[in-house]
Amino acid sequence: MSKIVIVGGVAGGATAAARARRLNEDAEIILFERGEYISFANCGLPYYIGGVITERDALLVTTEESFTKRYNVDIRSMTEVMGIDREKKEVEIRDVRTGKTATESYDRLILSPGAEPFRPPIKGIDLPGVFTLRNIPDTDRIKRYVDAKAPKTALVAGAGFIGLEMAENLVERGVATTVVELSDQIMPPLDVEMAAAVETHVKSKGTTVLTSTSVQGIEEADGAYEVLLQNGNGPETRRFDLVLLATGVRPEASLAASAGLDMSDKGGVRVDACMATSDPSVLATGDAVATLDFVSGSEMVIPLAGPANRQGRIAADNASGRRSVYKGTLGTSIAKIFDVNAASTGMSEKRLKAAGIPYKASWTHSGSHAGYYPGAEMMAIKILFAPNDGKLLGAQIVGGKGVDKRTDVLATAIKAGMTVFDLQELELAYAPPFSSAKDPVNIAGYVAGNILMGDVEMVNYEETLDADLENDLILDVRTAEEIEEHGTLDHVLHIPVDELRTRYAEIDSSKRVLVLCAIGLRGYLGYRILKHRGFDVKAVAGGYATLRHMR
Amino acid sequence: MSKIVIVGGVAGGATAAARARRLNEDAEIILFERGEYISFANCGLPYYIGGVITERDALLVTTEESFTKRYNVDIRSMTEVMGIDREKKEVEIRDVRTGKTATESYDRLILSPGAEPFRPPIKGIDLPGVFTLRNIPDTDRIKRYVDAKAPKTALVAGAGFIGLEMAENLVERGVATTVVELSDQIMPPLDVEMAAAVETHVKSKGTTVLTSTSVQGIEEADGAYEVLLQNGNGPETRRFDLVLLATGVRPEASLAASAGLDMSDKGGVRVDACMATSDPSVLATGDAVATLDFVSGSEMVIPLAGPANRQGRIAADNASGRRSVYKGTLGTSIAKIFDVNAASTGMSEKRLKAAGIPYKASWTHSGSHAGYYPGAEMMAIKILFAPNDGKLLGAQIVGGKGVDKRTDVLATAIKAGMTVFDLQELELAYAPPFSSAKDPVNIAGYVAGNILMGDVEMVNYEETLDADLENDLILDVRTAEEIEEHGTLDHVLHIPVDELRTRYAEIDSSKRVLVLCAIGLRGYLGYRILKHRGFDVKAVAGGYATLRHMR
Ligand SMILES: Cc1cc2nc3c(=O)[nH]c(=O)nc-3n(C[C@H](O)[C@H](O)[C@H](O)COP(=O)(O)OP(=O)(O)OC[C@H]3O[C@@H](n4cnc5c(N)ncnc54)[C@H](O)[C@@H]3O)c2cc1C
Ligand SMILES: Cc1cc2nc3c(=O)[nH]c(=O)nc-3n(C[C@H](O)[C@H](O)[C@H](O)COP(=O)(O)OP(=O)(O)OC[C@H]3O[C@@H](n4cnc5c(N)ncnc54)[C@H](O)[C@@H]3O)c2cc1C
Ligand SMILES: CC(C)(COP(=O)(O)OP(=O)(O)OC[C@H]1O[C@@H](n2cnc3c(N)ncnc32)[C@H](O)[C@@H]1OP(=O)(O)O)[C@@H](O)C(=O)NCCC(=O)NCCS
Ligand SMILES: CC(C)(COP(=O)(O)OP(=O)(O)OC[C@H]1O[C@@H](n2cnc3c(N)ncnc32)[C@H](O)[C@@H]1OP(=O)(O)O)[C@@H](O)C(=O)NCCC(=O)NCCS
Repeated sequence: MSKIVIVGGVAGGATAAARARRLNEDAEIILFERGEYISFANCGLPYYIGGVITERDALLVTTEESFTKRYNVDIRSMTEVMGIDREKKEVEIRDVRTGKTATESYDRLILSPGAEPFRPPIKGIDLPGVFTLRNIPDTDRIKRYVDAKAPKTALVAGAGFIGLEMAENLVERGVATTVVELSDQIMPPLDVEMAAAVETHVKSKGTTVLTSTSVQGIEEADGAYEVLLQNGNGPETRRFDLVLLATGVRPEASLAASAGLDMSDKGGVRVDACMATSDPSVLATGDAVATLDFVSGSEMVIPLAGPANRQGRIAADNASGRRSVYKGTLGTSIAKIFDVNAASTGMSEKRLKAAGIPYKASWTHSGSHAGYYPGAEMMAIKILFAPNDGKLLGAQIVGGKGVDKRTDVLATAIKAGMTVFDLQELELAYAPPFSSAKDPVNIAGYVAGNILMGDVEMVNYEETLDADLENDLILDVRTAEEIEEHGTLDHVLHIPVDELRTRYAEIDSSKRVLVLCAIGLRGYLGYRILKHRGFDVKAVAGGYATLRHMR
Repeated sequence: MSKIVIVGGVAGGATAAARARRLNEDAEIILFERGEYISFANCGLPYYIGGVITERDALLVTTEESFTKRYNVDIRSMTEVMGIDREKKEVEIRDVRTGKTATESYDRLILSPGAEPFRPPIKGIDLPGVFTLRNIPDTDRIKRYVDAKAPKTALVAGAGFIGLEMAENLVERGVATTVVELSDQIMPPLDVEMAAAVETHVKSKGTTVLTSTSVQGIEEADGAYEVLLQNGNGPETRRFDLVLLATGVRPEASLAASAGLDMSDKGGVRVDACMATSDPSVLATGDAVATLDFVSGSEMVIPLAGPANRQGRIAADNASGRRSVYKGTLGTSIAKIFDVNAASTGMSEKRLKAAGIPYKASWTHSGSHAGYYPGAEMMAIKILFAPNDGKLLGAQIVGGKGVDKRTDVLATAIKAGMTVFDLQELELAYAPPFSSAKDPVNIAGYVAGNILMGDVEMVNYEETLDADLENDLILDVRTAEEIEEHGTLDHVLHIPVDELRTRYAEIDSSKRVLVLCAIGLRGYLGYRILKHRGFDVKAVAGGYATLRHMR
């Protein structure tokens, strides 16, 4: 009979416990959790604070009692694992309530201790109205504060998905919210121009967004908080009733590190494909580990619930003597931020650039379903692919309905090693309420394929905005009504695409012509017509819809 | 300069024309359409009749005028192509209005004439209140009739997606609707137990559904129609104010056939992977052709808009001298039927059986997103896979929100040649409003994988309903409250799963134990516990949720 000890009772840990039992009715399984709750819905916490989830009990996906009954696992909540004696195969444990310590032996140890919110080393971080959010007690504290004090204003530091979800939920509660972010964009998994669309939306909801801004310190003053901010314009103090720090998480890796297990440069516990650490009897999963990035093969810490759950299952398999491997992480993530959904999978352009991996990109804009059926919403899709064979490297989508669907299709395609040409052929479910006969993913594949086939040459939003009007001419091929309604760039020449075949002689052929339209389709058509006429021409990728947020 | 002539101006034809122009600004492109409209939204027609789409113009995705301007294609609507002289490379055309005939030469001919509704050879089929639905004139006729006559009752013959969409839209208009279907189930692409869930829903909306019933004849009587129906109980006459025949479509293949082109036994024009017919100068696409089934490799006629659009693009490529191949059709389809969505991709169990292809199946039931976030809806997923390596062969999903998403992921996975083990590893976008950390597709992969690994043995709904209670014992492991609320089968033994470890001795170990729960999860857990205790045990796949519609 084997004895499996698990540290951490939530996503990775509880899944590992359940799976280990399902694999082996005989095993002795002990799960240590230093908190009061196991198996809670971390990802639901912001929505409970915001009142979208109304019952606190709903956050408890299962309870200690029912999990014990169902899985016959010895659950020891309020018990922290303090150390690992790998020689003796023992963990040192401490009862959080009484402080009593003891030891417990193991045959296999599975670590799923998660991550902790990063707490920047600034003054005032421990003040009562300054919070981080990771677990149920954090949630209770924030909710109690909001319920009791009815704050009018809040600062959220950090514009990742937790920060933005919290901003939305604070706004839901009637709190005027400011989000500050150190980097020059919100939503770090996205590239800057995709994030810009989200930022526009967040601002349209009355939320203030300050990028390239850091929090330097917090001081209490008359029951509120004076927060010292720093940005390009110098320091500035703003006053808030509540401060939430959501500036990222760090692996809870001290237990593993002090046990002498190999650690990744990225901060997490290093594991192999079977989720084993450098000690084969100790496995680790979830936010605490560094896994391989599926696309680049490099080590990454990716603190997401899907990977944690899957790794927990795989760790349980291996701890139970069944070989099972984890093939790396895509980092597929999504967030609903007010009425916009933003998702990404695989590598972003900035990460590809930093890693020196060659790539090409395409930008498209499509409706969630057929335009003639009511309720369609637009989405912007960016895909990144290898310049030689079109293999998919990453994708990002921002928009309304249907963002999650196309992200999942693209994540599946990346995992399958598909190319942009394969996207053209995907046969996706079509009826008017769901999609178009050419799904947005097919369209993304068409455009990317056309780029690779040399059927169109494109310039991106940046090259267009940086155009040198001495040598470049921006040709806007939209209708006069569209330009009137949405605006355009300065100094464009305007010829609607449908008149281009008869009016191309009006274009200065000594210049490079950048064809601008609404979403890129007519830019492509304009390209084809003008190329045929011998012009030096490029289409503006993604059209005005892509560059308007970057002006 | 090459001259491309296209027959048919909608999904396949108009796409081919647009693509051909984009590929070659110089080509002469002529498109013949015998109807008044090109590029209309066939798939939107039922919704216009139902008033969901309010503007008739919305059905015209593009018009002859704007398409001509944009793509410089010579569009000849109201012009029917009557014959093909392959020797001379000419088509014979006839002006529908004047009856005048002429000829037109081609270098490459692309046929996309679509399909025509099957009109069963019965009496009364041409009566004024008896309709079929394929195009705008049909739609106008039906809508005018409904607007003018305000029918109180309607019969829809045929329970495929067009029939059911029309039933829904007639109900939207306040018409009490009866659907009759010759086969023993509605929604032919689905297997019977999946279709049964849809049937339950349709009936719950007040629509009468009569399966295994045929329409034998129609007679006018006092401004209404006496329809003679025939089923196992003998003939019966029912009275309706309107009759819609939606009993499937047949390829419009006469043009190709009379030109001596190879035809498939399945009725469509035979094409190769480049969409070329047996005459390399003549290509064909869409509802009129037989393509290869992606999974089985056998010829199939699959009249769907996605394939038609993609084939149109591929035909244009090849007609323009660019090699481009079509890799076969999955038959991915979806329909919204009242509040339920039903989708399928790849092969169904009945088709696998008929083709003699070995398979296994799994049934799961999952929420569209995390249960703790409001608004989740259930879906039933059936996947079919190869017994040896787990390669995916097909999938069917019926449920609320998120059916389309999982169908598309599974369609992508099938296209990629993925196995059920690959599904386990898909890293899909998770945040509470969108999914669960273990997505329904991951869960389907887990269950199918467990079956293949021998971790659980299952019986399906049929084997359970046919259980021989002399030798089989059905063990219901749900709670007493669940059984009270949802009911159970006759003669079950009831022990909640959480008590099984202590109460298993109550089970007659001389019998084969079939463990029944709500969705299959606890059946699996019960299996694991009882197997360990030496019982001859099976889990009931998909639980009560799968078999309740088949009782
Ligand atoms: C507010 C919020 C929103 C989120 N939203 C999403 C989302 O939408 N999508 C998504 O994919 N991910 C989301 N996440 C991330 C997701 O919750 C984590 O990736 C996932 O929970 C990680 O699982 P884990 O098992 O590694 O760690 P956790 O789930 O954090 O579990 C670790 C547990 O280990 C315990 N522990 C730590 N050290 C010890 C010790 N020494 N002894 C005993 N117990 C110990 C901790 O108390 C903790 O309960 C969100 C996280 C938060 C906080
Ligand atoms: C009511 C309805 C709902 C549908 N819903 C869906 C759905 O939700 N999802 C889905 O995937 N599919 C759906 N379809 C099917 C989809 O519309 C077809 O698969 C698709 O249109 C086929 O394209 P095609 O080019 O082959 O034929 P069509 O689009 O039918 O175009 C053929 C055209 O050719 C013309 N033509 C025929 N013969 C000649 C000739 N000799 N000379 C000149 N012109 C000729 C016809 O007049 C016709 O306009 C639906 C169809 C209908 C009728
Ligand atoms: C209207 C119709 C003629 C349009 O055909 P189409 O031009 O091929 O299709 P789309 O409008 O989706 O445009 C796709 C083209 O634009 C390009 N494109 C789309 N978005 C783009 C963007 N953002 N940037 C650059 N190019 C873009 C694609 O690459 C593709 O061109 P390609 O085939 O040369 O690669 C055709 O779809 C039709 O007739 N539809 C109605 C009939 C029908 O389908 N009925 C059944 C369903 S109801
Ligand atoms: C609650 C919790 C312990 C459940 O873990 P779990 O039992 O592994 O997961 P599920 O309840 O989804 O069940 C999956 C298992 O049931 C099986 N199953 C699911 N549906 C089934 C069906 N219809 N028929 C048969 N088996 C089924 C699966 O095969 C799988 O078993 P396996 O791993 O042995 O293959 C864990 O998910 C948890 O702690 N969640 C909350 C924490 C968290 O994830 N937070 C981050 C997100 S908010």
